[in-house]
Amino acid sequence: MSATPLSEPSTDVRIVLVGTSHPGNIGSTARAMKTMALRRLVLAEPDCEPESEDAWAMAAGAHDLIVAADRHPSLADAIADCTLVLGCTARRRSVPLPELDPRQAAAHALATAGAGGRVAILFGRERIGLTNDELKRCHAAVHVPTDPEFGSLNVASAVQIMAYELRMASLGPTPAEPVAVPAHDRTEPPATVDQLERFFVHLDEALNDIDFHKGRAADIVMQRLRRLYLRAQPDERELRILRGILSEAQRMARLAGPEARSDRKREGQG
Amino acid sequence: MSATPLSEPSTDVRIVLVGTSHPGNIGSTARAMKTMALRRLVLAEPDCEPESEDAWAMAAGAHDLIVAADRHPSLADAIADCTLVLGCTARRRSVPLPELDPRQAAAHALATAGAGGRVAILFGRERIGLTNDELKRCHAAVHVPTDPEFGSLNVASAVQIMAYELRMASLGPTPAEPVAVPAHDRTEPPATVDQLERFFVHLDEALNDIDFHKGRAADIVMQRLRRLYLRAQPDERELRILRGILSEAQRMARLAGPEARSDRKREGQG
Repeated sequence: MSATPLSEPSTDVRIVLVGTSHPGNIGSTARAMKTMALRRLVLAEPDCEPESEDAWAMAAGAHDLIVAADRHPSLADAIADCTLVLGCTARRRSVPLPELDPRQAAAHALATAGAGGRVAILFGRERIGLTNDELKRCHAAVHVPTDPEFGSLNVASAVQIMAYELRMASLGPTPAEPVAVPAHDRTEPPATVDQLERFFVHLDEALNDIDFHKGRAADIVMQRLRRLYLRAQPDERELRILRGILSEAQRMARLAGPEARSDRKREGQG
Repeated sequence: MSATPLSEPSTDVRIVLVGTSHPGNIGSTARAMKTMALRRLVLAEPDCEPESEDAWAMAAGAHDLIVAADRHPSLADAIADCTLVLGCTARRRSVPLPELDPRQAAAHALATAGAGGRVAILFGRERIGLTNDELKRCHAAVHVPTDPEFGSLNVASAVQIMAYELRMASLGPTPAEPVAVPAHDRTEPPATVDQLERFFVHLDEALNDIDFHKGRAADIVMQRLRRLYLRAQPDERELRILRGILSEAQRMARLAGPEARSDRKREGQG
């Protein structure tokens, strides 16, 4: 992983399912991992047959991770060569451990792996999670900040969140200047101030030509329209479309003739 | 939750499942949402019976969200009152939209909801996701950064990731990562999707009335104008001004008469 070390988090971060009893959850875990470019699945003390129809169905194309998974009859064996062990827990336990959220855990895991360490992230049984004995083997607990009123996170969903955070961390920091939304994926150059100002002059003329103001305060309307279009940050092509529309509206006003104007003839009297 | 408004992201952010065909995914979605304190599920054009055994089994105690879910035969209805619509897509589409990762999307959604807006986040069908027509209704696309070699993210897993990011954002800033949102010092309520769609209908009619298209492709122009105005996120007063302008242009076109149209008489021959 020398060329693009950050885009391949998989190598030295393994996901360890401990005592899983539903093959479907093993399948879902494999799928969750593979979508996030994690490949190394470890099954410690599995309480079911992982290579089963249910697992394959839920894996949806990620069954290769199950076939390649290391299986260990004891958790101790599964993590013997690791330098950092994180245990995902649904709730605070009696074992005093530093507690990380998934984002902090991902940053820590990648930093460790990047420095040559080997990381295991443990996910416990469907009903009871990790035991206290298992947590004692962990350097830190990972707590997904679920709603205290409903903390029932599926084990594969917890893996999905952790794998997603590892993926996000591996892709590097989100741009320091996050995209303005709605942002503009420009294929055209943005309009310059000068182009915008000429558009506003055109807009003002057109509003007069089509008799929009009818004696109301033109300044306030123009100010609001300026704000709207400045906010939109139009590109050159968009300005061309807008000016094309104005020109056609002006053409209609010319053809309608001066009688169409309220200062010459009120519409109600027409 | 008045004391800690940020810990309750649910109220004005709704998760919209579009055309879901497996009740189990509706159940998993409900569970994913409820673990992250999101409560408002909307089923648009569901392609199955949501209240079923499969859904209940996967909901694992979150079936109350399915019972309470709004159901809509059309997506347009489901999002009519929204001010921000985000569409989760697996891959880049032909519809040019600003693209956010789930973290940016969560920040933007909560900022919008916090400012009084109503947010919908759309998740498409199991196999084909959201259609281009559905994406055209979105202000931005949300792209989960899956491994390009295996982008097969289950729909409920995508919801889980998005719900998790909303939860993380609602619990307060991890790092200082302010989203740049186009400055809009709102004194007026933002326009809803429904109001915007009616504006687009009016705009389309007016462009025809003033003979703007002259045989050119109306769809492409309308798509560009949609993007421009969606990006600007007009408020209600701004939409009233724009519609007032359209009405005046249409009045001029009526007074100009049918001879003004290029399909009746070319201007150069006039």
